[in-house]
Amino acid sequence: MIFTLARRARAMNPSVIREILKVTERPGIISLAGGLPSAQTFPVEALREASQQVLRHQASAALQYAASEGLPVLREWVAQDLRKQGMQVGADQVLITTGSQQGLDLLAKVLIDAGSPILVETPTYLGALQAFAPMEPAVHSVAGDEQGPDPDVLRATALSLSGRARFIYLLPNFQNPTGRTLGEARRADLARVAQSCGLPIVEDNPYGDLWFDAAPPQSLSARCPEGSVYLGSFSKTLAPGLRLGYLVAPRQLYPKLLQAKQAADLHTSSFNQRLVAQVLQDGFMERHVPQIRRLYKQQCEAMLQALEREMQGLGVRWNRPLGGMFLWLQLPAGMDAAALLPAAVDQGVAFVPGAAFFADQPVRESLRLSFVTADEPQIRAGIAALARVIRDHARSGPSAGTSVRPAEGGA
Amino acid sequence: MIFTLARRARAMNPSVIREILKVTERPGIISLAGGLPSAQTFPVEALREASQQVLRHQASAALQYAASEGLPVLREWVAQDLRKQGMQVGADQVLITTGSQQGLDLLAKVLIDAGSPILVETPTYLGALQAFAPMEPAVHSVAGDEQGPDPDVLRATALSLSGRARFIYLLPNFQNPTGRTLGEARRADLARVAQSCGLPIVEDNPYGDLWFDAAPPQSLSARCPEGSVYLGSFSKTLAPGLRLGYLVAPRQLYPKLLQAKQAADLHTSSFNQRLVAQVLQDGFMERHVPQIRRLYKQQCEAMLQALEREMQGLGVRWNRPLGGMFLWLQLPAGMDAAALLPAAVDQGVAFVPGAAFFADQPVRESLRLSFVTADEPQIRAGIAALARVIRDHARSGPSAGTSVRPAEGGA
Repeated sequence: MIFTLARRARAMNPSVIREILKVTERPGIISLAGGLPSAQTFPVEALREASQQVLRHQASAALQYAASEGLPVLREWVAQDLRKQGMQVGADQVLITTGSQQGLDLLAKVLIDAGSPILVETPTYLGALQAFAPMEPAVHSVAGDEQGPDPDVLRATALSLSGRARFIYLLPNFQNPTGRTLGEARRADLARVAQSCGLPIVEDNPYGDLWFDAAPPQSLSARCPEGSVYLGSFSKTLAPGLRLGYLVAPRQLYPKLLQAKQAADLHTSSFNQRLVAQVLQDGFMERHVPQIRRLYKQQCEAMLQALEREMQGLGVRWNRPLGGMFLWLQLPAGMDAAALLPAAVDQGVAFVPGAAFFADQPVRESLRLSFVTADEPQIRAGIAALARVIRDHARSGPSAGTSVRPAEGGA
Repeated sequence: MIFTLARRARAMNPSVIREILKVTERPGIISLAGGLPSAQTFPVEALREASQQVLRHQASAALQYAASEGLPVLREWVAQDLRKQGMQVGADQVLITTGSQQGLDLLAKVLIDAGSPILVETPTYLGALQAFAPMEPAVHSVAGDEQGPDPDVLRATALSLSGRARFIYLLPNFQNPTGRTLGEARRADLARVAQSCGLPIVEDNPYGDLWFDAAPPQSLSARCPEGSVYLGSFSKTLAPGLRLGYLVAPRQLYPKLLQAKQAADLHTSSFNQRLVAQVLQDGFMERHVPQIRRLYKQQCEAMLQALEREMQGLGVRWNRPLGGMFLWLQLPAGMDAAALLPAAVDQGVAFVPGAAFFADQPVRESLRLSFVTADEPQIRAGIAALARVIRDHARSGPSAGTSVRPAEGGA
């Protein structure tokens, strides 16, 4: 090849998850794998109406180049929405991004030098590891428990790095992949440790609005406003296909993120920003989001019931998420989720092996299940199929599985 | 500040052009500055109809996550369109990007290490310099003439770098900022030199469809298919607010660009891709683009006539573009375009000083004029105002100007 690759490109690999998702797109496969919101929740009518309004009354502006910061009215909406949640945020701190994935890319560019230590939960969001990877950080996992990262481990890790860690990346609400949520006490402890260590926080909150019975505790960014960057998204509350997210940064850091944004894609689609600004008028979200919460709670309940029914006596454990899209399942010790996948696909059900979500020391017995993409009958059938596969696998013994473990590329 | 910036971020600066554009947004200013397509050319009706169709018949897919490569039917359209122009391109080589600016960002990530030499025309597109800058290349300008970069200089520069240059970045058609076009002989020479030196080409072609009387010669990528990446855009032929572009890469390089794309924003808006795919049906572009060509040719003609009328005896020179959006003006020797700008804005007209477009050794007498954003009466009034300012400045002498030269940040 005539092209010489940059060093960072040699480390890039296809996403394991994207490869799995290709398999799950086969007709007839029940996918508990992807993080795809239920298409039932997309506000199709509101977007249809909004697209008419925008193209009738704002076409010249909606189709033209626009400011890199984002549409002022949308930035103001975001700031107001966050202020309602107890954060001190001005619209001038809001940067509209092409999905919150782009926010991670911009942060990586602005904050990570080759070799810079960064801290992550374990397991954590694979897409964040992929966004950070091109800037070649040294990724350190902070061990924890079902309540989230351990504050003492965080302190010890930060100290062992002599304050050189550029940030800790946290998903406090209904985390991807585990579905776990940081409680009030854990948040307070983590925020205090981060502040005392001078450790910035990157708080990623794509799922926070999707609570079942009660809103989660106050954000980490509300506790450390000068030391946090907060990422949000319209992908789960409106539609991912619009690619609309945002970040909120302290005023001193904002200009650098803005310059990185400008260089990355000039600005996020002005048409999509105006569509969403139009939809958001008149308290639309206050009517729309509760419907998503109800649907997802119901589907989560269906999955939990199916698990209780089907997994009896198999030595499988799982958590009870308080919201979001995912739950986390632990197979019996020594059973490799990746080795189970081909048989599961043969049985018509797909999931994501948990190993993909660990920056290091993967727990191979874990797997992620989404309860939002498939509907209730599919969830029941999918969990029943998964139980059959686990039962067969337990009988035939672990050695049959390890030989078909797929290669693991990427993080 | 609690945040530690990456080394690359310290070198980031606000775009001079964006700062100038803010000034030009003042009401009453005639802007010959921005590279904004005429809003008259936006296919509003076609997009209105398409948004209805897409949200009626494809809403679930259009609003959902999608493949990072882009929508298959759109990739096929691009490949076919390029094959009509003599390029050998398969749809599998097409990557849909969030504007062609993102294509530059992805190429920078995949091809540039800190300190890697890259070659550019002089002057060149400022946004490309900004997209490349975060990966910290050593930028070398290849001197040329009104026909484009000099092939002998290119060979000498490539040889002096012992084959380490990662690529040369070229805009062959109606270049931003100069409006110049590489002729057939110059293309053949540059392609031959690049091939003989093993130098990859990044060919950026956002304006190629906007020719006045005749299509430009065959692309560089058609001449060096294995050694080129080609960038295209729907921003100038449909609407920039959709943020829809594409790149075409050799099959060996494509997977790395795809992985970088995935990490950058997962995928480009599936809604916008489906909108445009819908609009493109039934040969829409064959009816639509000729209208843009006619309008821009007419406006360019109006600007050229106004220049001939107003600039008499001022020692000002300019070129006659064969298409695109810009022309390039040279002030009398020693007159600094940046120093002229405040007085021009006072007179109600704005332009971009040429110095912003040089990676090194700026020609301060140059300036860029857009003939597409303002309409014909505005163009005539704007050129008349600019002539008054040049005349006044020539009378009062150069020293009056240099004291008000704005600080130059960025490239």
